[in-house]
Amino acid sequence: MSEAGYHIAILGATGAVGNRILEQLEQSTIPVKSVKLLASERSVGKQLNFKGEPISVELAEPDAFEGIDIVLASAGGSVSAELAPEAVKRGAVVVDNSSYWRMDERVPLVVPEVNPEALRQHQGIIANPNCSTIQMVVALKPIQDQFGLNQVIVSTYQAASGAGQSAIDEVIAEAQAYIDGDRAIMNDDAHILPVKGDVKHYPLAFNLLAQIDVFEDEGYTHEEYKMIEETKKIMLGDPKATAIKVTATTVRVPVIIGHGESVYFEVADKSATRESVQAAFAGADGVVLQDDPDHQIYPQPLLAEGSRDTFVGRVRRDLENEGAFHAWIVSDNLLKGAAWNTVEIAEQLVKDDLVHVPEQASWK
Amino acid sequence: MSEAGYHIAILGATGAVGNRILEQLEQSTIPVKSVKLLASERSVGKQLNFKGEPISVELAEPDAFEGIDIVLASAGGSVSAELAPEAVKRGAVVVDNSSYWRMDERVPLVVPEVNPEALRQHQGIIANPNCSTIQMVVALKPIQDQFGLNQVIVSTYQAASGAGQSAIDEVIAEAQAYIDGDRAIMNDDAHILPVKGDVKHYPLAFNLLAQIDVFEDEGYTHEEYKMIEETKKIMLGDPKATAIKVTATTVRVPVIIGHGESVYFEVADKSATRESVQAAFAGADGVVLQDDPDHQIYPQPLLAEGSRDTFVGRVRRDLENEGAFHAWIVSDNLLKGAAWNTVEIAEQLVKDDLVHVPEQASWK
Repeated sequence: MSEAGYHIAILGATGAVGNRILEQLEQSTIPVKSVKLLASERSVGKQLNFKGEPISVELAEPDAFEGIDIVLASAGGSVSAELAPEAVKRGAVVVDNSSYWRMDERVPLVVPEVNPEALRQHQGIIANPNCSTIQMVVALKPIQDQFGLNQVIVSTYQAASGAGQSAIDEVIAEAQAYIDGDRAIMNDDAHILPVKGDVKHYPLAFNLLAQIDVFEDEGYTHEEYKMIEETKKIMLGDPKATAIKVTATTVRVPVIIGHGESVYFEVADKSATRESVQAAFAGADGVVLQDDPDHQIYPQPLLAEGSRDTFVGRVRRDLENEGAFHAWIVSDNLLKGAAWNTVEIAEQLVKDDLVHVPEQASWK
Repeated sequence: MSEAGYHIAILGATGAVGNRILEQLEQSTIPVKSVKLLASERSVGKQLNFKGEPISVELAEPDAFEGIDIVLASAGGSVSAELAPEAVKRGAVVVDNSSYWRMDERVPLVVPEVNPEALRQHQGIIANPNCSTIQMVVALKPIQDQFGLNQVIVSTYQAASGAGQSAIDEVIAEAQAYIDGDRAIMNDDAHILPVKGDVKHYPLAFNLLAQIDVFEDEGYTHEEYKMIEETKKIMLGDPKATAIKVTATTVRVPVIIGHGESVYFEVADKSATRESVQAAFAGADGVVLQDDPDHQIYPQPLLAEGSRDTFVGRVRRDLENEGAFHAWIVSDNLLKGAAWNTVEIAEQLVKDDLVHVPEQASWK
């Protein structure tokens, strides 16, 4: 630690998540000595405020990391692949929001409420999990701890903002075209979703797209494999572990901010009841139980927007499978699903005195 | 059968479903001798066209059913409770779209592709199932037949039109307010959803409402019990049967027409493969397999709108549970989910020569 705090760089500072990382850093407990904003050439010179002071965006290049203690990165996989090791070489610890490093055995994949101890093994790069994974494991952690977790089957309802600002703009334009009765314009507006780099694009407004990320083996999407493997790496320490069965169907819905998840889960302790499961959720870090059917209280994306918490409701025991339950989980995918979890990892690193690159680090 | 065809009455003719029943009847194989349109007082005198001829709406009252052979009803539970027996007393067979009669032991609950034989037991009233149930059982019928079905876990993504025209209008108004940046107006616009008769109302535009119909025991909604009990009554003949475990989480999404369903199912025949399951779907009546990940082909509400078919895609074997699979099922909730299934039941009654009320009918 530098004398009065940490020198922090935000890589990809101008994106929807980068912006929110800056906001979350302002509100965090991390003692900040300086903030450097890094992005690609076309954003250089733009200004963003940190605690009332304007900061100019600088070019993201290897030497920009000289003197930096912590890098908070949200610049996409290819940029992180190239620049994260460069930052580590220069002594910085990188918390990376892209999917590039998540399955690397040298890289802890961390949700501070779930597996903070994994940070102790870091070699300079720490990965922030996928948005839909984070909110699910935060909610399921108290269940795993108190009742043992055998199986998880999740169907997601994911917001457009998970695909970036351009996807948000596209859905809003499509929705206006739909309201105006112009389906042709609506179809013309689809350039990004379901997946920016894929061949075909479809409107999401007033529609459902059962494809998030590209298709891979067995008809599963990359997003579905992320949810399966990341959940296992975070909860069990190994993406191929079999102690908990995990499966996912991921669907993009016409919501701007806030992912919903319908989760079926089976616990080992068959004495678990609806009430004891609700109590476990209510007592967990980062979780807010919103579950009062008599008063129509249940999690909603519009209500979760802007909050760091993960909201859990509609808790029910399965009526035919002993030890099985259902829950409805909602969180702001840009905050707990991205910016806040990234900053929270950095807070945890500071708290545990882990803001240093070990001698034997692979990338040093 | 009357000499040149059947005298048909549409009860609730002016609603979103009633309108579509008239359209579907125009296109059906039923020999129609006359069509009578019935509705409540405020719609009397309105005109609708049938095969180019204008027909005036008349008052729905008991004597309006004199001389009618078939009643296609979509007027809500309380109206059906009162008027369906009156129609039967006057010799008409009633196909009812409300939920009122569905669990009555004297009333067959029918999806013609799944349990047409149940019609043979009718006593004058036949119930049309819930929209979200119909598309699921149509898709799962070939699976039950070919592989045996042990378990179904469904999460729904249900369109606003399931709650009627006023819900559609509300979501469109809310979406415009959201686009215009006025969240206060958006909240003010919520008067119907999630449930017309319930205490609180929330915006659905760019949001998710994990409540369809009112809450009942154990934290389940009435819609969830409908899906569980109707599926069992249709597929097993008894709403409390245990040969197939069925559970549901039902969620309203900001789509206007077309319900989506993420369905996990376990079969008895463990030799079932992804390919044999896909082939079963492809060969089933009323089902269209839309499942080509390599070309980004999967069911979408905007593509299903206006079709009588149920679309199935994203078929995958579960990677950790033997004999378990996933599918994504989409159908036009106003057609196969309501108007078309109602008319299709009437077609089946005509085909099987069942358009008569038996002597021993309860309501005669």
